[in-house]
Amino acid sequence: MPHSFREKLAESSTKSDSLLCIGLDPDISKMPEAALKSDDPLAYFCTRIVMATKESACAYKPNFAFFESMGIKGRLALEKVIKSIPREIPVILDAKVGDIGNTSAHYARAFFEELNADALTVNPYMGIDSVSPFLEYENKGVFFLCLTSNKGSMDLQKEELKNGEPVYIHVAKKIKDWDAKNQNCCAVVGATNPQEMQGIRNILDTQPVLVPGIGAQGGDLEAVCRNIITGKNLPTLISASRSIIYASAGDDFEEAANISAESLRKKINDLR
Amino acid sequence: MPHSFREKLAESSTKSDSLLCIGLDPDISKMPEAALKSDDPLAYFCTRIVMATKESACAYKPNFAFFESMGIKGRLALEKVIKSIPREIPVILDAKVGDIGNTSAHYARAFFEELNADALTVNPYMGIDSVSPFLEYENKGVFFLCLTSNKGSMDLQKEELKNGEPVYIHVAKKIKDWDAKNQNCCAVVGATNPQEMQGIRNILDTQPVLVPGIGAQGGDLEAVCRNIITGKNLPTLISASRSIIYASAGDDFEEAANISAESLRKKINDLR
Repeated sequence: MPHSFREKLAESSTKSDSLLCIGLDPDISKMPEAALKSDDPLAYFCTRIVMATKESACAYKPNFAFFESMGIKGRLALEKVIKSIPREIPVILDAKVGDIGNTSAHYARAFFEELNADALTVNPYMGIDSVSPFLEYENKGVFFLCLTSNKGSMDLQKEELKNGEPVYIHVAKKIKDWDAKNQNCCAVVGATNPQEMQGIRNILDTQPVLVPGIGAQGGDLEAVCRNIITGKNLPTLISASRSIIYASAGDDFEEAANISAESLRKKINDLR
Repeated sequence: MPHSFREKLAESSTKSDSLLCIGLDPDISKMPEAALKSDDPLAYFCTRIVMATKESACAYKPNFAFFESMGIKGRLALEKVIKSIPREIPVILDAKVGDIGNTSAHYARAFFEELNADALTVNPYMGIDSVSPFLEYENKGVFFLCLTSNKGSMDLQKEELKNGEPVYIHVAKKIKDWDAKNQNCCAVVGATNPQEMQGIRNILDTQPVLVPGIGAQGGDLEAVCRNIITGKNLPTLISASRSIIYASAGDDFEEAANISAESLRKKINDLR
């Protein structure tokens, strides 16, 4: 019987003594000379970042859009990058998909089978039958957007429903329901919402939570750790991308990424 | 000054005397022998469907997931298929994306620039700053999910907000606001919701609406036409995929697709 995603995540976290998820958002305009000179800048850059930071990472989160925007070459690079990540470290592919069931099944096949990601980010707007094709992969993880880190989370996620609950709490409850069958649901909760985290954690009390928005987006790490990491073993991942992978644009980019990742890993551990 | 998406859509509709949008969801398990024998089944099948149906189509809607699930070959096929669509017929790429601004900008580049789609489907869950990178392409169209055709639309879209409005009406109002700057917003409203369509049309009174869910999903064409097409020139697209492209799995698949598309085009025109 293969590992469940949740087991794989817990083992990786224990082995690395880390809650850090490193986002891979390769952007040509920010990469060092050495990468730009190579035949395959995205793969060159990301595989080196992975090699340099793998001791500090609990998980990696490649961002589909950054590869897709480079066309076929980007798509090929994404395959190479995922293959370069050590097998025991979970890969969360960040594509925020969600469609009618027939179509979601194709995304599930693309990302879980073709690309062999361990987990995927999914948008909950279309409801249960749009997400069930992902949930059927019982050993994979599904991270649902719940409350995101951007300003636009005001537009719908923070609106109040008739029963007084904000939309994101309603979604958290759906995630809890959807998790019952295969225990493979997780949530994305932006770091810019420390106050709201407790309410979500009260509902999603055993589900892994991914927290983006530390670093470039200005989330407060201390407030996040106080509100969402309530026990050493609770599966909460703190995600950072730009502040690690672009720590230096010079020849020392690997060393700088390593230092930045290791420093954040320790900072999180001091606060958990 | 290049055409706006809305102008291009109106011209195509006038020229073809059609409101029909043909969905391209190429599925290996449903394709005719001839396609499966070719080196590039997806491109073979879709380019022939386009050639066979182009007189009846107001627009084409390639479904990103069906190409993506075939890996690199699928991605290459998608490029070929989009290039094979006559330039005057709008291409709406159905990928239902939406992410933080920095990432959405990469999707916009991938789909509007690399793949040269005329319009894109976008998920509104993350709000304004997640959608503005798409809206900045003033000559492209952005189709926001408003009320979808699947059962899961009950889970969030039909929930009532504190002010008594269902979520999908709240979203329709956001789409109206977002449209003010560049008049490039459109909405997706599933055919399985004829009662709700009037309410949405009252808000989105000049915005193009795409209606999927006729055919395989069981939407009632007559009820849809009665409720959403209230004038000959109102930009409403009725989308069908499986009922046209898989009208026959035999050697006559092109002819069968042509007959099915032409018949639906006329049926819609009789009802508008």
